[in-house]
Amino acid sequence: IGDIMEETGALIRKRRATISTGKCVPLKQVNGRSEVDESVNGRSDSGNIVTKRNVSDLPSTTSKERKKRINVPSDRQSCHRLQESLLSSASGYRNYRGVLNWCVVMLCLTTVFCFSRYGILVDPIQVVSLFIKDPYNMPAACLVIVSNVFIVAALYTERRLSVGCFSERVGLLVHSINLSVTLCFPVTIVLMVKSITPVGGASALGVYTVLFLKLYSYKDVNKWCREMSHAKARSLARSLSCKSSVSTDYQVSYPGNVTLRDLYYFVFAPTLCYELNFPRSPRIRMSFLLRRLFEMLFFTQLLVGLTQQWMIPIIQSSMKPLEDMDLPMMMERLLRLAVPNHLLWLIFFYWFFHSSLNFIAELLQFGDREFYRDWWNSETITYFWQNWNIPVHKWCLRHFYKPLLKSGVSKWLGQSAVFLASAFFHEYLVSVPLKMLRPWAFMGMMAQLPLAWFVARFLRGNYGNAAVWLSLIIGQPIAVLMYVHDYYVLHYREGSAGGGPE
Amino acid sequence: IGDIMEETGALIRKRRATISTGKCVPLKQVNGRSEVDESVNGRSDSGNIVTKRNVSDLPSTTSKERKKRINVPSDRQSCHRLQESLLSSASGYRNYRGVLNWCVVMLCLTTVFCFSRYGILVDPIQVVSLFIKDPYNMPAACLVIVSNVFIVAALYTERRLSVGCFSERVGLLVHSINLSVTLCFPVTIVLMVKSITPVGGASALGVYTVLFLKLYSYKDVNKWCREMSHAKARSLARSLSCKSSVSTDYQVSYPGNVTLRDLYYFVFAPTLCYELNFPRSPRIRMSFLLRRLFEMLFFTQLLVGLTQQWMIPIIQSSMKPLEDMDLPMMMERLLRLAVPNHLLWLIFFYWFFHSSLNFIAELLQFGDREFYRDWWNSETITYFWQNWNIPVHKWCLRHFYKPLLKSGVSKWLGQSAVFLASAFFHEYLVSVPLKMLRPWAFMGMMAQLPLAWFVARFLRGNYGNAAVWLSLIIGQPIAVLMYVHDYYVLHYREGSAGGGPE
Repeated sequence: IGDIMEETGALIRKRRATISTGKCVPLKQVNGRSEVDESVNGRSDSGNIVTKRNVSDLPSTTSKERKKRINVPSDRQSCHRLQESLLSSASGYRNYRGVLNWCVVMLCLTTVFCFSRYGILVDPIQVVSLFIKDPYNMPAACLVIVSNVFIVAALYTERRLSVGCFSERVGLLVHSINLSVTLCFPVTIVLMVKSITPVGGASALGVYTVLFLKLYSYKDVNKWCREMSHAKARSLARSLSCKSSVSTDYQVSYPGNVTLRDLYYFVFAPTLCYELNFPRSPRIRMSFLLRRLFEMLFFTQLLVGLTQQWMIPIIQSSMKPLEDMDLPMMMERLLRLAVPNHLLWLIFFYWFFHSSLNFIAELLQFGDREFYRDWWNSETITYFWQNWNIPVHKWCLRHFYKPLLKSGVSKWLGQSAVFLASAFFHEYLVSVPLKMLRPWAFMGMMAQLPLAWFVARFLRGNYGNAAVWLSLIIGQPIAVLMYVHDYYVLHYREGSAGGGPE
Repeated sequence: IGDIMEETGALIRKRRATISTGKCVPLKQVNGRSEVDESVNGRSDSGNIVTKRNVSDLPSTTSKERKKRINVPSDRQSCHRLQESLLSSASGYRNYRGVLNWCVVMLCLTTVFCFSRYGILVDPIQVVSLFIKDPYNMPAACLVIVSNVFIVAALYTERRLSVGCFSERVGLLVHSINLSVTLCFPVTIVLMVKSITPVGGASALGVYTVLFLKLYSYKDVNKWCREMSHAKARSLARSLSCKSSVSTDYQVSYPGNVTLRDLYYFVFAPTLCYELNFPRSPRIRMSFLLRRLFEMLFFTQLLVGLTQQWMIPIIQSSMKPLEDMDLPMMMERLLRLAVPNHLLWLIFFYWFFHSSLNFIAELLQFGDREFYRDWWNSETITYFWQNWNIPVHKWCLRHFYKPLLKSGVSKWLGQSAVFLASAFFHEYLVSVPLKMLRPWAFMGMMAQLPLAWFVARFLRGNYGNAAVWLSLIIGQPIAVLMYVHDYYVLHYREGSAGGGPE
């Protein structure tokens, strides 16, 4: 009789379950889908052993218990429910970590296949020759070493300001001179010294640009600190009433931060925004460090290999159509260039923003590893530019955009100004090392503004995302081809005056 | 003075924020990261306009309010916090929907490039000739039409059972005969009729296999219904006490379901598990239907194009090394075959499990669209097999694995039995149409068992996922090459007795 009662109970339960299923509206599935799944489908999955996430996750029930549960007819009856497929956008499911792993596996397989077929064709001598022409004359390296002068100058100015030897006005003047020279000095050197290669020059200019942004931030933050301490002094009575003894952690406060050690930590730290007390990670994880180091070496090899074996042949073959302005042929070369260029950019992104910056951060126990956000999901051009390079984005926001807004500039104008500044630096980093002033990088950056408007206006969701990818895949090789063409025309056709290496 | 007070308040707030940041342990970020982000970083992001997800999502603050918030120095000071990069596995971030879009964009670009370069090379006549040799003699189509006999036979048996004309024993016997003939009849026809092509034969056998699984489920569910109604009759008093009037929805109950219309709906519905009341979607969404139809046509074209232009040349060129058993050359061909084969499988997966099944489901207003789960994230082989083909998985669980467990078989033995049955059907669907009995598909399926053990034992997380991908990419082409080699040897070298088209 107990058996019959159980069966009847199950029957009632089943009917209720059926009713609730019948009323069920299409479930808007969320990211934490599996959990929702389990709770909604609990009644019918209670005896469902193999469907669960992992075999190891199974509750350790005895086989007797399990048999009893399977006896319940309810889970034999209603085995369907109203739901969307995961790949439908209506499902809201977005966990595709596996697709990323798939890309990595495909990349590794392709690499193994290429190496097994062609052997290692990368020529390390040629790589070094990109940076250095003459091993006893390394102007780019010397230029980087000289940059320490500007760091020390900035520190000296701040020291003077902190003790009150310099007034704010004098301090600003000295800083302005120091920062302008930081930007202009390498330009004159790169343009004057013939033995600097384009790659070496670009690297040195990159170092100086980063230094400029860092010293600008250093100057700003120290000024803010002085402003704050003045305000503090004025309201000393109120300030004393708050519990300052809570601060048990070792925290530096102004002007205790104006030291050589502190400034050099900031110069090497993977950020452009100065802060008195950076968040620090508790220890250096050796396995993490070694994995990042391995990635750095592997991807460097891959970058060089792909460039030498895939990019350069296509670029060389596209010189002829570019000269003749053969439009259909140019389009064809462009499409052929787009894929390797895009892959190189992706590998470069991972190599620089994930491997290298994390490596440095781990070494310096720098806590904030947000060097990029999820730009791969960006559905607008704006979102992409705000999330692919977080150090620069943070700097622009803190030291450029917000001060602009504060001074009364409208939001739209502020955003355009950020793009303009970004376009200037892109141009600076490309034109000077190549020793030719062409507007392609500048125009490429400025073209992002109407494009961003168009995408935000007309495209949504996955279509917007596809448009962002397409602009990346197609946009970059156009600029690359432009520069390469002009460089080629300048150095190899109109006499060999420049004679720079390719 | 109000200004100063505000500044001081901000200072206190800032200090507290700094302290809380200093104590912060590495945040275990979850999928809904942006929300957590916003709440944790709320203090420093309150005036942060550009960082927000979308410009359109911005709260509509006046520019005056915004300027006031920017004045607060707290968000100028602490702009870093302890956090991992998103791509680090420690971050727990898993939203890579954009990567999937990237794959789609790359696929489309490649297709456009190939078509712009080579034109449309797909020969529709050749595609049709894969199915039909002689347009006036279509044995495969006839075979599919004949299958209606078995459907009607199953319905007849159930009708008899429902009114009590057949005893359970007789019903089981008739069903068993009907089901065995469903499996054996097409085999004899395919092996006997010379004009059936391998592709046509495989399609017909696929239809019969699906029908077998469906009719088996139909028989089981109707039996369960009878068992339940008997139990109900025995405990009639108890059953009446429960509120049966709640069931206001139109719900069919046994034996009202044993109709031709109901059975044919089940036969065409994209599921293998019979249920009396399937969840139904409220209406046919035309745009959804048309998008699925477009995908079906596009991917059919792509599948045929890739096979004709990429797969077949590689297979043809690998015949010689396979004959000579030239191992290094075989490995090289295998790696070359792996990539197109894998891409074809992926496209086939999408074409069949997303586009086609969703198309049919939309047309029939069938509610349950879970034809696959997130197998792309699977970290064990077992998880992959449980999630890539949900209709078959559901059937195995409901009509094979659970009854086995119920009859006292251990969990491990039950799983192996499921794999064995699956291996049998794989072999059945490949060997019979090719008219040669080779153990490759069977062995391929059975090899999954030790592989699953190995991956579950030694690999975790992303490494496990990579192993699953690798087994898919490398495993399949081995089996394909084996069959192709044997088919080639049988039909093209040892005389042209078979003479089947390639």
